[in-house]
Parts: sequence; C-alpha cells; structure tokens
Amino acid sequence: MKNVYFDNAATTQMRDEVMTSIIDVMRNNYGNASSSHSFGRSSKSLIEQSRKTIAQYLNVSAGEIVFTSGGTEADNLILRSAVRDLGIKHIITSKIEHHAVLHTIEQLKQEYGILVSYVNLETNGDIDYLHLETLLQTENKTLVSLMHVNNEIGNILDMQRVSNLCQVNKTLFHSDAVQSIGHYKMDLQEIPIDFMVASAHKFHGPKGVGFAFIRKNSGLQPVIFGGEQERGLRAGTESVHNISGIEKALKSACDNLNKEADYVKELKRYFINRIVNEIPKVAFNGNSGDLNKSTYTLVNVCLPISPKKGAMLLFQLDLKGIACSKGSACQSGSSQNSHVLTEILSDADLQKPSIRFSFSIYNTKEEVDYVIDVLKEFIE
Amino acid sequence: MKNVYFDNAATTQMRDEVMTSIIDVMRNNYGNASSSHSFGRSSKSLIEQSRKTIAQYLNVSAGEIVFTSGGTEADNLILRSAVRDLGIKHIITSKIEHHAVLHTIEQLKQEYGILVSYVNLETNGDIDYLHLETLLQTENKTLVSLMHVNNEIGNILDMQRVSNLCQVNKTLFHSDAVQSIGHYKMDLQEIPIDFMVASAHKFHGPKGVGFAFIRKNSGLQPVIFGGEQERGLRAGTESVHNISGIEKALKSACDNLNKEADYVKELKRYFINRIVNEIPKVAFNGNSGDLNKSTYTLVNVCLPISPKKGAMLLFQLDLKGIACSKGSACQSGSSQNSHVLTEILSDADLQKPSIRFSFSIYNTKEEVDYVIDVLKEFIE
Ligand SMILES: Cc1ncc(COP(=O)(O)O)c(C=O)c1O
Ligand SMILES: Cc1ncc(COP(=O)(O)O)c(C=O)c1O
Repeated sequence: MKNVYFDNAATTQMRDEVMTSIIDVMRNNYGNASSSHSFGRSSKSLIEQSRKTIAQYLNVSAGEIVFTSGGTEADNLILRSAVRDLGIKHIITSKIEHHAVLHTIEQLKQEYGILVSYVNLETNGDIDYLHLETLLQTENKTLVSLMHVNNEIGNILDMQRVSNLCQVNKTLFHSDAVQSIGHYKMDLQEIPIDFMVASAHKFHGPKGVGFAFIRKNSGLQPVIFGGEQERGLRAGTESVHNISGIEKALKSACDNLNKEADYVKELKRYFINRIVNEIPKVAFNGNSGDLNKSTYTLVNVCLPISPKKGAMLLFQLDLKGIACSKGSACQSGSSQNSHVLTEILSDADLQKPSIRFSFSIYNTKEEVDYVIDVLKEFIE
Repeated sequence: MKNVYFDNAATTQMRDEVMTSIIDVMRNNYGNASSSHSFGRSSKSLIEQSRKTIAQYLNVSAGEIVFTSGGTEADNLILRSAVRDLGIKHIITSKIEHHAVLHTIEQLKQEYGILVSYVNLETNGDIDYLHLETLLQTENKTLVSLMHVNNEIGNILDMQRVSNLCQVNKTLFHSDAVQSIGHYKMDLQEIPIDFMVASAHKFHGPKGVGFAFIRKNSGLQPVIFGGEQERGLRAGTESVHNISGIEKALKSACDNLNKEADYVKELKRYFINRIVNEIPKVAFNGNSGDLNKSTYTLVNVCLPISPKKGAMLLFQLDLKGIACSKGSACQSGSSQNSHVLTEILSDADLQKPSIRFSFSIYNTKEEVDYVIDVLKEFIE
C-alpha cells in the first residue's frame, strides 16, 4: 500500500462537490462583489448566500459571519481588535492553544502591555476549570481565549461551562474552533460565546478561507483596512470561489455529520484497539485515547522506543507512504518538540517519539491495518 | 449584444490556463505545505516554485516575495509594520491612493500619531514632484507610499524619479502596483524601491491572493501572527491552489505582454476616437485620454449630461448588459463621489457623471462599438 493520508488535522482533501462548486464559480462569476453591475451583483449574491448558509448551520444571523483568509487571520482579527478597540486589558488563555492564538497574544502583550494569564492544565491536557474561575476574579476588562478541540491531543473544552463562567463574570469569550467546526454540531444560541473561528481546509474545503463568528454589536474593528467589504470589518476583494467552497464544504459536512462522524470514529476505535493489542506499551497523549473525551478525528500516541530510533520514525513512515505528524503541521518540519506535548508530558515521555494520526472519511480500515503493521515492524 | 464587461480595473476574468492550474492543484495537491511528509512537500514545492517564477519576472530574489490574501492585505502588512517595527514617523502619500493605502494610513495615524503628508496634485492628477521633493526635506524617519498606476484615472507615476528621490533622501518607498503588475514590465533591479504590492485578480488570476515585494533585510515583521509560514512574515496555511493560480496568471501575462498590451491599447485608442467623434463634448478625467500618459487599460470619461440624467446612466448601461464603473469598485455601490475625482475635478464637472471603462484581452472592437452606440443614444 502506498499513500495513506493520516494527517487530516493538518489539512484535508477537498470533497468533489466542493471542487465542482469552486470551478463553477471561477468559470461563471468573475465580477467584483463590490461592483454594482450584474457581474458584481451575482458575485455579491454568492457571498451573501454562503454567509446565510453558514449562519444557519451555526444558528446565528448572517451578519455575524465575517469571511477571512483562514483561521489564523480570524484569530488575529478578534484578539487584536478586542485589545485595541474594546479595551481588553487581560487575556486568559492556555499554553496549548494554536500558535495563531498564542503568538498573537504574545505580540499584543508586547504592543499593548496587556496582562496574560495561562490557565493551569491537568496532566491529561484538560484545563483546570477551578483555576479558570479563580483567574476570572479580576477587575481588569478580560477576554478568555480557549480552543474548542485541541489540534494535537484532541481534548474537548466544555464550552457550555466556560461560556457560562464568562457570562457570570462579564468576560468576553473567544474560541478557536478550527478543529471542531464541520466535525461537531454547533448551536451558538445555546452557547453564549462572543467570538469563534473556523477554517475551511480542516473540513474538506479550500485552503485560504475561513470565517470569524462575531456576536452582534461586538464593537470589533478591522485589522486589515481598505474597502468596505464584509460590512467594513475586513477589507480586500473577496475570494468568491473560495467563499463558495467553504459554504459547500460546511454544508456537506453538517448534512452528513452523524453518518460520517460514526465512520471516522469507528476508524479511530479500530486504530486504538489494534495499536493497544500489537504495541502494548503504547501510551496516548492527552485524552486522545479516550473516545468519549477527545475528538473522533485523531489519536496522538507516544511510542515505546528509544530517542535514537524515534528520530528515524517519521522519515520511515514517509518512506512507506504514510503521512502523519509530530505535533502540528507548523512544527512538523522543525526538530523542536511540540509546545503542546511539552506542557503535559514528563521529561521521560518527551524523549520518546509522539505521533499524531488524524482521520477522515477518505480513510479506510485497510489503511489502519497497513499503518499498524508498519509501526509494529519498525518497533520490533 | 449582451454582457460587455468593461470593468477590468475592478477585476478580471481568469485565463483558462490559470483555472486549469488551480483545478489541477486542488485535485492533486492537498497537503499542508508545513507538513514534512510527501503530501506536504509537494505543496511546499508548488509554493516555492510560484515564488521563484514571480521573482524572476520582477528580477528580484524569491525570498523577497511574500504571498498574502490580496493587494489590500499586502498594503496593510507593509504600512503597518513600517510604522510599528521600522520606526517610521512620517508617511508621504497622496489623496488619490486606493483605500487600502489611504484608510490604513489614517488608522496608523490614529494608533501611532504619525505625521501624514499629502503631496499636491496637478489638475491632471499627476503628483507635483517638486512638492514631493520639499516634503522629503524632513528629519523624521519617512516612508513614501505612492501608487504606480491609478486605478480610476490611469495616471502613471514616474517610478524611477520617485525612487531616486527617495534614495537621495534616505526614505523608504512603497508602491501599490496592483494596477500595473501583469500589465507592465517591471524590473526591480532598475528601480530601487523597497516595497511593492500586487493582486492576482487584476491580471486574470484568482481573487484572494496577492503578494508583497519586500526588499531583503527590510526588518518588516508580520501583521498576522501564528505559524512560521512565508518565512515568518505571514502566518496561516497557504492557499496553494490560489498561489499556483497567481504564478500562472503572472507568467501568462508577462510572456504575452507586448502582444496583449498592443491589443488592449488599440481597443482604448478606438474607444477614444469613437467617443470623441460621437460625443464631442466628452472630457477625459486625469490623463486617461492620453495614450502615452496613462495605462492602456482604462479611460475615465466625464459625460456632458445633466446630473439628473447622469444619475440614471449606470443603471441604464447595466440594463443594456454593459459593466463599467463609477469610481472604483469599492465605491460603485454607494452614491458618494469617487475620492479620486473629488480631488481633481471642478465642482461643475463633479456634477456630471463620470464613468470608468476598463479593457482586457477578452474585449473586442465590436463591444466598443456597442457601448459607444448605447452611450450616444442615451445622451441624445
Ligand atoms: C490600486 C489598488 N490597490 C489595491 C487594491 C486592493 O487589492 P485586493 O482587491 O487584492 O485586496 C485594488 C483593487 O481592489 C487596487 O485597484
Ligand atoms: C486549532 C487551529 N487553529 C488555527 C489554525 C490555523 O488556521 P489556518 O490554517 O486556516 O490559518 C489551525 C490549523 O492550521 C488549527 O489547527
């Protein structure tokens, strides 16, 4: 077997119908959505249609969806404007957020001298909710930024609990939901959150487009200035084909969610069962070995082999056509350890190789078998 | 005749080979360019290939090209980081820049209290070069931001002269070249400029991708923080298909430049000749009526009709299937006058309707004939 793509948390293959929709728009809708003539109006209406569809799936209003060039830009928009325009003086976050959040907050700290608190983590990578409550006892105008599903270890935040805590404490709440939107049902009327972020390429949509959910009357201002696109919140000619692509991708994901989630979860279950049986000393990082406490899309395993041998592992897997990752994609090229695992593993475990395998509807049990066989052979 | 698209300065139709290249990448290269496995490496190599191609056409090195989500973001990156990270205290610009430059500078003035000087304009819309020289006599650390080709009136900046002036005065020079890259040959070894900006959708490439040229060792820092993409200058998973699209679009544009420029210029010449003959009292805004002093891609005409009748004009043209624009696309939906024309026209001329017609290789003389006939009929 060749070419097993088990790196779906880094990015996913586009669905056929998403590509079809993108191609159709590229061919037939080249107007600038800001133009008032018919070419412009049809591009505009495609964008507004996408906004409406997405809003419906999240149970919010269309005006609360702002298209961006991806999850990273959406995180930057929300965090920067919250500090600059809403007077946020204190951000509570965790050390295992994505760099789009962590580095942005570090930069804002440098630029604006805001206070940054990191909530304590349990050894399984969950946040310490009691510590969060303590941190929320503050006079400073505060924003909480905690991701919904962690992209490396798959832990799931209790959104209801955190958003309720934030409400009680009159604190803004932002969540990077790049790993969960399109994978989990999301009803933002039930969760009183202020800001949320998604990225199309994590749910079989195109790369280079995402959106921010920004609760009505938030007072946010743009980070990228220019034209009046996105109701003045994000300047720049809209990428109409990509925006149609994210609409289609979210629609397909949500319409088939239960069935597809079951399928992918079964792959994960099968992977866990096989690896536990064949490589008994394997450990699971974070909650990723627990099907109920982590996303069904990924496992992160710590393998019982020497650092020296471990250093060869990714390379060997690649030679066998297996795509998976050490930490997140942003770090996989570097020899640095994942900042997430560094926070939760012991020094001894950090010496051993940890690998994230992440699944999608395009994977099969045969692929799991192949990967486990290759791993087993390598380790023996 | 139906559907004449004369709004190519707002955005252009993609070339077939650009779409083919985008489709091919969407189908076959879905890896995240930051991943170290084979899927990731092939996406990475597509991006680096695009960067190299683009750099060659501009005669710069690949490391000096930074991909962004478009021209607007690239302008924001350069201007914001110049103020925040390079200590720029003074920006010299003009009142007829694109809003991506103007609004960004206004925002930076608010945030950082920088000094902003607007260079005087001649009545034809050219900048007053002597006034620029005077403004450059300053102790403040200064950046000049002047666009190469104006998107409304087509005036062309003397890049050599301005870049030389900037060099002599040890001032940084940024130019928004969104309307000229892909339309004019550009050799950045000959022009000692620091920063330049392009956008694919203005030269038959995809919407939602552009680039910044950033001269080596500039010291710029990102505006969007997160992963280490674009050598740390622009975080966010790269839009591989769009980046391959901009490469192909620039390649096709540059390889066919002389031939295609001649063709489009002939359309403009023909348009000017016919309109001058058939609507004798027409006036040309800026230099746009002068084939040698304005871009070959557009004309901006001030029509000799009453304001009341003028108010119906765009609407009537749209009914006849003609796409053109009042001011830039960003303003065409609003009833406000173009900020560019407001700077250069008399109050009397501002009362009359001004329309920009902008051409591309996909237009024909028959389309010009049709548009002139419709205009003539409307005016009589
Ligand atoms: C001169 C100029 N600068 C900047 C832009 C903005 O570029 P983009 O549409 O890629 O954001 C445009 C067109 O919209 C333009 O004409
Ligand atoms: C949790 C999380 N947040 C943000 C991002 C960044 O999103 P994008 O790649 O669209 O910039 C990613 C993935 O790259 C992610 O996994």
